[in-house]
Amino acid sequence: MDIYEAIRSRRDVRKFRPDPIADDVLKRILDAAHHAPSVGFSQPWRFLLIRNQETRQAVRRLFDEANESARDVYTGERRALYDTFKLEGILESPLNLCVLCDRRTQEPTLGAQSIPETVVFSTCLAIQNLWLAARAEGVGIGWVSILEPEALSSLFELPDGVEIVAYLCVGYPEAFLERPLLEQVGWRPRQPLEDIVFEEHFDPKR
Amino acid sequence: MDIYEAIRSRRDVRKFRPDPIADDVLKRILDAAHHAPSVGFSQPWRFLLIRNQETRQAVRRLFDEANESARDVYTGERRALYDTFKLEGILESPLNLCVLCDRRTQEPTLGAQSIPETVVFSTCLAIQNLWLAARAEGVGIGWVSILEPEALSSLFELPDGVEIVAYLCVGYPEAFLERPLLEQVGWRPRQPLEDIVFEEHFDPKR
Repeated sequence: MDIYEAIRSRRDVRKFRPDPIADDVLKRILDAAHHAPSVGFSQPWRFLLIRNQETRQAVRRLFDEANESARDVYTGERRALYDTFKLEGILESPLNLCVLCDRRTQEPTLGAQSIPETVVFSTCLAIQNLWLAARAEGVGIGWVSILEPEALSSLFELPDGVEIVAYLCVGYPEAFLERPLLEQVGWRPRQPLEDIVFEEHFDPKR
Repeated sequence: MDIYEAIRSRRDVRKFRPDPIADDVLKRILDAAHHAPSVGFSQPWRFLLIRNQETRQAVRRLFDEANESARDVYTGERRALYDTFKLEGILESPLNLCVLCDRRTQEPTLGAQSIPETVVFSTCLAIQNLWLAARAEGVGIGWVSILEPEALSSLFELPDGVEIVAYLCVGYPEAFLERPLLEQVGWRPRQPLEDIVFEEHFDPKR
């Protein structure tokens, strides 16, 4: 698939068909992630594949807990609209993927001393490679961000220095929507490109 | 360009030809970035285009200062190899691009309450879209990570709540290397894919 087509048609997917992802497809997607840029060629990303139903039920409970407080900041019409959103596909998707950043190093990472978070940023770049490659394979990804990272870390018994960056649901989608759902239902409009591009100086009033 | 080809042939570029980037090419690249996924459709990314030579000279001085201490962690052969690396192309590239994350919001961002950093992560996803679209256009990107963010923020007079995520050099490259330079010269090898993928449990010993 053409890069611009993949970028334009990629969606955050919440509704999955149960069909499993073939091993060779999954391998191509993970390999695409692994070819992301990384600060000092650190390749700090780690991919934890989760299919076990009990683990997923535990993650789902963590989502429910986190969402209980997350939804409370919205009131009135906004809250009513919020409550219509499906914000995860943890149990229905054929695969969950926890993306980790391994910050343990034997030698300081080249280029990461001024901004140590650049290893986490590199991990995010890998996630976008993964997301686009998945789209090209007809596979949908949904990022579940409503999870307390500490609770998730202890569920997965992660050692110090290994951080959770993303929890993704992966599978064939019911559909790739024409536009992002939050745009389509009027939660937020897409900003015009000219509003987010600045020449020489940032304008705080825009 | 095919998505897998863009991913495989994308490089961190340090050596640029001086030719300017045409406006329509730049617009397509920025628009690709703007179509990244973002938590709660927040679209928090902001792109500050810098061509002014005085500004760039000031950024270059900040790089020199930061690199003075960054290089000091390496000794012996590693230090000698480090000193051969060109780690920025601030003055030679036709365009510098400072990527910002605007965290100021009127309403809490949907999905960003458990992990507030997800807005920064979204900005990184936009950077990878930008990087891949640039590759498809024959344009190279180099991420300059050896810069103190506070010094850079005050140079650009950024208000509270607007954070620098990346400082990029953008232009047509002398070449897209066959393999990443740091791999090619033996700074670090590419890790085998099987070492970074885990099933059900993370293994801290790998």
